[in-house]
Amino acid sequence: MSYQDFTERMSKIADVNYSIAVLHWDKEVNLPPKGAQHRSQQIATLSGISHEMFTDPEFGKMLDDLSEKNGLDELQRKNVALIRKDYNKQKKYPTSFVIELSKTTSESYHAWVKAKKAKDYSLFREALGKLVKLKRQETEIVGYEDHPYDALVDEFEPGAKTKDLAELFADVREKLVVFVNKLKEKSQVNADFLYKNYPSGKQWDYGLKVLAQMGYDFDAGRQDVSPHPFTTNFSPNDVRVTTRIDENDLGNMIWSCIHEGGHALYEQGLPTEQYGLPLGSYLSLGIHESQSRLWENNVGRSLAYWKANYANLQSVFPENLGNVELLDFYKAINRVEPNLIRTEGDELHYHFHILIRFEIEKGLIEGSLEVDDLDQVWNQKYRDYMGVEVPNDSKGILQDIHWSHGSIGYFPTYSLGSFYAAQFYAQAEKEIPGLASQIESGDSSQLLTWLQQNIHQHGRRYTAEELCRKITGESLNFDYFMKYVESKYAGIYN
Amino acid sequence: MSYQDFTERMSKIADVNYSIAVLHWDKEVNLPPKGAQHRSQQIATLSGISHEMFTDPEFGKMLDDLSEKNGLDELQRKNVALIRKDYNKQKKYPTSFVIELSKTTSESYHAWVKAKKAKDYSLFREALGKLVKLKRQETEIVGYEDHPYDALVDEFEPGAKTKDLAELFADVREKLVVFVNKLKEKSQVNADFLYKNYPSGKQWDYGLKVLAQMGYDFDAGRQDVSPHPFTTNFSPNDVRVTTRIDENDLGNMIWSCIHEGGHALYEQGLPTEQYGLPLGSYLSLGIHESQSRLWENNVGRSLAYWKANYANLQSVFPENLGNVELLDFYKAINRVEPNLIRTEGDELHYHFHILIRFEIEKGLIEGSLEVDDLDQVWNQKYRDYMGVEVPNDSKGILQDIHWSHGSIGYFPTYSLGSFYAAQFYAQAEKEIPGLASQIESGDSSQLLTWLQQNIHQHGRRYTAEELCRKITGESLNFDYFMKYVESKYAGIYN
Repeated sequence: MSYQDFTERMSKIADVNYSIAVLHWDKEVNLPPKGAQHRSQQIATLSGISHEMFTDPEFGKMLDDLSEKNGLDELQRKNVALIRKDYNKQKKYPTSFVIELSKTTSESYHAWVKAKKAKDYSLFREALGKLVKLKRQETEIVGYEDHPYDALVDEFEPGAKTKDLAELFADVREKLVVFVNKLKEKSQVNADFLYKNYPSGKQWDYGLKVLAQMGYDFDAGRQDVSPHPFTTNFSPNDVRVTTRIDENDLGNMIWSCIHEGGHALYEQGLPTEQYGLPLGSYLSLGIHESQSRLWENNVGRSLAYWKANYANLQSVFPENLGNVELLDFYKAINRVEPNLIRTEGDELHYHFHILIRFEIEKGLIEGSLEVDDLDQVWNQKYRDYMGVEVPNDSKGILQDIHWSHGSIGYFPTYSLGSFYAAQFYAQAEKEIPGLASQIESGDSSQLLTWLQQNIHQHGRRYTAEELCRKITGESLNFDYFMKYVESKYAGIYN
Repeated sequence: MSYQDFTERMSKIADVNYSIAVLHWDKEVNLPPKGAQHRSQQIATLSGISHEMFTDPEFGKMLDDLSEKNGLDELQRKNVALIRKDYNKQKKYPTSFVIELSKTTSESYHAWVKAKKAKDYSLFREALGKLVKLKRQETEIVGYEDHPYDALVDEFEPGAKTKDLAELFADVREKLVVFVNKLKEKSQVNADFLYKNYPSGKQWDYGLKVLAQMGYDFDAGRQDVSPHPFTTNFSPNDVRVTTRIDENDLGNMIWSCIHEGGHALYEQGLPTEQYGLPLGSYLSLGIHESQSRLWENNVGRSLAYWKANYANLQSVFPENLGNVELLDFYKAINRVEPNLIRTEGDELHYHFHILIRFEIEKGLIEGSLEVDDLDQVWNQKYRDYMGVEVPNDSKGILQDIHWSHGSIGYFPTYSLGSFYAAQFYAQAEKEIPGLASQIESGDSSQLLTWLQQNIHQHGRRYTAEELCRKITGESLNFDYFMKYVESKYAGIYN
């Protein structure tokens, strides 16, 4: 097989995968209710075709041949090596296991839906138990050197190790939790004005302007509305975002636009000529999230950003914000408060939510925890770290869909995203002279260029660890996040 | 192979084909400009996969086995027989021919775009010549009994014969053209008020109500806007229509909604349990068009329909229609006038456009016409039948995209649609007591039920000829159309 045969094959597989992405996007944005059943079936069929194309033994042989071939340049070798690794991992799964897992996740999803509605963990317990058993089995199938949880995390954050995550979350527990508890002693900031009535048409128009200002290319994407905001892409030239509009919660729309916009800028910045290849793909969920979080928090919740934009926002909503000072607005959008639901968590408590899920997942996979009284374990952790009482399982252990999908090892990437974002942003501040004053004047173009050059254009060329070292000179270091947090929140809570 | 294996296989092929339809729909409705190239590639890849799945020799053997199998019921035998026929037809095409045709249509499309822009047929002539040569070759590959054009028409209107079409279009020439020429002596009706300013938001809302009133199920579909209105479907439970809104032309939106709504009701009425099978598919383009035309013209341009709906339309647009009497509105929407552009043709002249294309296509395929001076032939026919002078090729021979796509044999189905519609509607009037007064009171539910029971539910169970006989007791008969036309236009033009 020539390298060209390889890229053509990968391109065809990508065509199928991106078609699946179109079907999913349409499902979330447009699908009439009766269309759901056939749409699921259509997605399943294309997924089967894509899987067959990728795991074709003939393709495996081609990859072996190609990886021994001379004459490939470094980037080509990288593409082949990464695909070969993916291929070999895929081939480890016995068909019987894949079928069993697919059946179990489907059952478990339905059990979760029912249990969540009934606010009763006991309806989900058995299905979750089956799933955990299978995921433990999966760690043996995939293999690991150090900790079985490594095998699961690798799916979402290639190369990440449980050992390092455990250290990171120990920091969260020891530094962040302690810091946030100190904030509780301070007087709370007022944010009531964010929850007045904000007409949805005006919100929509404002959100489009936010995206345009970030540098999101509307000729290579579009925004729509969906119940849960998300970003998807069908090539770097068609990257779509969605937002949600709540007429009684302005922040919901603004930061979902900025967050998804950050994801989208990453996808729009991937090299088009590497379509379907690892070097044309995002690196990991953690790095993806670093881009959304960097824009959402480091930029979008900064005083500098709102110095540039607040007057305009006031002019769009004069009834609600006309009498609110910039500094009061800034404090309100950074209000810190313990809460029950992860997706509604503030910038700091968010990581408490992830900490709890990480501890539980790690325990389940290594066998130090079982599903039996997991609701009690959950509630106790929320008491210990967050200081809140979980009123029912729907607002507790059943709140997230991930486990019911069999996605164990996914949650830590959310925190990784914020921690990488802090470290990258600190570096960008060093390397871009006058970044703060650019942001203050509404110009984030140099920041975007910096992100494109340092992160986006590389695709999967480096591991997250390598990329982080290459950009910042060191591995992921939680101190950057803590420094950012301390300096920012000292200003807000004195 | 069991019948279940067969349906599962067909269902998977349908999943891929409907996925392609989603990609197309999204392309027309949503695609950002830069996304076009990869989208075309994604569609091409899925089309290749679908073609491979359908033409797999192993599948052919399965079909042979299955068609000899006992124990299938009549409907099952029908499904197998129709697919076997499709399969055998597909297999006749040598790969080299398919590649050549695909290359030529692609070139010819680009030549057409260029020529249309330059208003110069000579830039399209060579490409069209090549295409015609290939289409003549195709008639030999596919085979035919009587006339080579039969082989091409069969793709769009299975079983239709050139001989019958020639008779039909002789009727158009001798009866319809003569009738319309008599109308020219009458005084023209005024339609100016239809071209005042009609705000697009109000038009949009009105269009949705039109669809709802027809019985279009919004839980199994949705309407969007696109440059060229169309209907597509991803199952009978997800049938989508689009419309076009011109603020200075109310009729454009109203009758595109009703027309596409008619197509959509057909698709929504196909049996879901026959998903992916011939009995779950529309019968032919002519029958499809009969449904859109029946709603658009026999219902939607009737006095009865507007007796039910005109007051409401007036209340939506009081500035423009408040002082226009129902009868004047009715006359305006049925105004007859020679014109150059097929898609803008009125209910009667429309068939002159098709007559001209039929005569040219038939001539090109049988060899009595060549592409050399085809623009002159075109212009002469417009002079002869329509009494108009073609000012340039862009408004003449280059106006339609179809030939550049290699779609020769498609145009006649448009006229067949109207003629079937007239015959079916005459029958419906006989069988549904009080149909006219139901329409006058805004209730078309019995008509829809009649169409569902007589046409929609059967899919491809009968040929168009069989279906027409089954419903009306006779073959397609042009007299029904003429009778409808004469009685309606006598009222409008005295």
